[in-house]
Amino acid sequence: MLKQPIPTKIYLSEDEMPKAWYNLRADMDPLPPLLNPETRKPCTKEELEAIFCKGCVEQELNETDRYIAIPDEVREFYKMYRPSPLVRAYWLEKALGTPAEIYYKHEGNNTSGSHKLNSAVAQAYYAKQEGIKSLTTETGAGQWGTALSMASAFYGLDLTVYMVKVSAEQKPFRREVMRTYGANVIPSPSETTEVGRKILEKHPGTGGSLGCAISEAVEKATSTENCRYGLGSVLNHVLLHQSVIGLESKVALEKYGVKPDIIIGCAGGGSNLGGLIAPFMGEKLRGEADYRFIAVEPETCPSLTRGKYVYDFGDTGKITPLMKMYTLGHDYIPALTHAGGLRYHGMNTVISALYDKGYMEATSVSQTKVFEAATLFAKTEGILPAPESSHAIRVAIDEALKCKESGEKKVILFGLTGTGYFDLFAYKRFNDGEMVDYAPSDEEIENALAKL
Amino acid sequence: MLKQPIPTKIYLSEDEMPKAWYNLRADMDPLPPLLNPETRKPCTKEELEAIFCKGCVEQELNETDRYIAIPDEVREFYKMYRPSPLVRAYWLEKALGTPAEIYYKHEGNNTSGSHKLNSAVAQAYYAKQEGIKSLTTETGAGQWGTALSMASAFYGLDLTVYMVKVSAEQKPFRREVMRTYGANVIPSPSETTEVGRKILEKHPGTGGSLGCAISEAVEKATSTENCRYGLGSVLNHVLLHQSVIGLESKVALEKYGVKPDIIIGCAGGGSNLGGLIAPFMGEKLRGEADYRFIAVEPETCPSLTRGKYVYDFGDTGKITPLMKMYTLGHDYIPALTHAGGLRYHGMNTVISALYDKGYMEATSVSQTKVFEAATLFAKTEGILPAPESSHAIRVAIDEALKCKESGEKKVILFGLTGTGYFDLFAYKRFNDGEMVDYAPSDEEIENALAKL
Repeated sequence: MLKQPIPTKIYLSEDEMPKAWYNLRADMDPLPPLLNPETRKPCTKEELEAIFCKGCVEQELNETDRYIAIPDEVREFYKMYRPSPLVRAYWLEKALGTPAEIYYKHEGNNTSGSHKLNSAVAQAYYAKQEGIKSLTTETGAGQWGTALSMASAFYGLDLTVYMVKVSAEQKPFRREVMRTYGANVIPSPSETTEVGRKILEKHPGTGGSLGCAISEAVEKATSTENCRYGLGSVLNHVLLHQSVIGLESKVALEKYGVKPDIIIGCAGGGSNLGGLIAPFMGEKLRGEADYRFIAVEPETCPSLTRGKYVYDFGDTGKITPLMKMYTLGHDYIPALTHAGGLRYHGMNTVISALYDKGYMEATSVSQTKVFEAATLFAKTEGILPAPESSHAIRVAIDEALKCKESGEKKVILFGLTGTGYFDLFAYKRFNDGEMVDYAPSDEEIENALAKL
Repeated sequence: MLKQPIPTKIYLSEDEMPKAWYNLRADMDPLPPLLNPETRKPCTKEELEAIFCKGCVEQELNETDRYIAIPDEVREFYKMYRPSPLVRAYWLEKALGTPAEIYYKHEGNNTSGSHKLNSAVAQAYYAKQEGIKSLTTETGAGQWGTALSMASAFYGLDLTVYMVKVSAEQKPFRREVMRTYGANVIPSPSETTEVGRKILEKHPGTGGSLGCAISEAVEKATSTENCRYGLGSVLNHVLLHQSVIGLESKVALEKYGVKPDIIIGCAGGGSNLGGLIAPFMGEKLRGEADYRFIAVEPETCPSLTRGKYVYDFGDTGKITPLMKMYTLGHDYIPALTHAGGLRYHGMNTVISALYDKGYMEATSVSQTKVFEAATLFAKTEGILPAPESSHAIRVAIDEALKCKESGEKKVILFGLTGTGYFDLFAYKRFNDGEMVDYAPSDEEIENALAKL
């Protein structure tokens, strides 16, 4: 297609929105299966259906269909906040004085404040279709909990959210958004579940973690009638739903004849990153195109860069299936960081396999460097980014500065997963000069990995 | 134009964005002039230029040019967050079971969280052009302060924001956003100005008001070298800048052959309302089309519905020029309400004149009714609205319900001025069932008006 002047924001029409999700596993060798935590044998469909909705389980186990149709009802909901804009970061480029072209896919323009709504809608839709009455989930930064609250309110489902205690304390207003959407929000670990009580006994006063909150939510779902658990990241059906990010980005770039050289995403459980890269990685795996992919994680929780590629539990309480993934160990409790959404010990299995085989790179960054990037981005691009997203911004800026040195005109695409309106406690720390960095010592990491 | 299927969100292309603002005064009889607070004679250009940037003063005094060009640099900034979507509220319509068509212009998708950025950019741009080094302003809900912080950061201007004390306390994180953009935020009334000290002496422990904060900001601007004051509403150059809202709405509706019957906006100082209605009201004044216009104000601060159309000061400290407007009196301190942006004693002169001559209607609503509407809107349309904007939502819903009774298929357009991410304290009150309403008694209003 002809190179045309590129607008600041590239919006697709609603007709151009993807009609099917992109299932990257169809381009990959089969992944090591999920294992039953008790028998250590591959999980059966039925076992998974005790936890998740059938629609999600079917997608979780589908390794063959490259495209999986998005139900019309889900597409209608998507139209409330999608397509999301692909933005050319003209002002950031100017501030950096880089010859690089920087683009970002902005997923924060909806009330959940992030990309999380893309999967929440789908999960709540399948629950409703299957006659499920209530859902449970966990939330770290609060974005996923808000997203599932919105989707549950829309489909008339009851929802209980286990919110990582430290996030609930740092973000009281996040809880209030979820309550506005009718959700019951419980700080985790809590006394409402057996696993919560055990964790509290072992670690009194703990601020909790995503791993703990998942255990509680799964226990609650499996012990409540007609109730299922919804997960905001890590599993492959969540990545599948997030592929709308990559699909829309690709169509938008192709409209203007632009091909990215480097694609960057922050990595917690892996869903936004997996969704962003999906169709591009598909091309790379099929040998049709080449791209550099960079996963960015916080130095406090370096599962890809310092973890081990082994089978591990998805949660602290050892209730979930085992996954072959990069992990720091299911009872690794990451140091407190302001990017609550990235405080997860493991990593999605697709991302783990791709990283293991060298199809993508990973790097970790400190939070003060992340907030420096966030502040520059806010001032130049007019968007206050979420701390999680700012990990990707940091590395995008670093790559653009490398281009400035080398004179290369690379095209950089990164995922701006969300906005930081509920992260002002963190910004305050940074603005007050009180933000501290923490990188686990080699001994800490070795001790954690030794348990695997 | 042919009726086409209407998408959920109508986005214009960047080329379709307006190239000129719409100056509604060109369609009206001349307005009573601003008066010098000391001489009570019409303010001269020079007098106004001691307070405001020259570019803004020129616009403030321009009553003849219907279109005033938007500088290219301002249009470039606009492209960071505009055009804003015009949304068809399919899901709200469905929930109400109304035959009415409801549309809203969503101005909240930028970090200031509201339409305020439309004027902030222009004001900061003119300041920069004119060699001004610093700006001062006031903020109530915090949206205007955030907007001017963003614009000032972009153009490299220093900014001091006087924030109504009660808002600063209810919204600590709002302050942090402004700090992130480099602004100096001072709760008002403060000890930093003479007028602030006087107000504190007279009303110790007061939560402040927009009227007080304006006095402080103006004093600071006029007593600081190379500094000007930026105002977020009330004056006509602000309404002019906000006309991008109405212009974009009109183009978007015309694209699909839709003509609104009723146009609704919340009214504090009048800028979003004036901007939304501008090109439509122009047609009405010229006899080219007819529309119903409804201004919605909080019952705690009913300047149009219960005020008097007289000359009054724009601020509590009697520093600003006098304006002929609907007012409750410059020392009327409205009861605390969660719609801080609507707690202003007066009303823009254009809106006042149009209301006085019967070209538009006004109504007032209680805050619990407003939050009921806000919650329904959040659940159906997926956007958590600002309390201010929710005043317009309330009346849009009421009008749609009247259509349900009468069976009329009216087309309703309202302005969704912003999002409520920093208003969760208010939502918490509502969610906890602790929100109370307050309508001033006739005696209170009579006493206030008697001073005029």
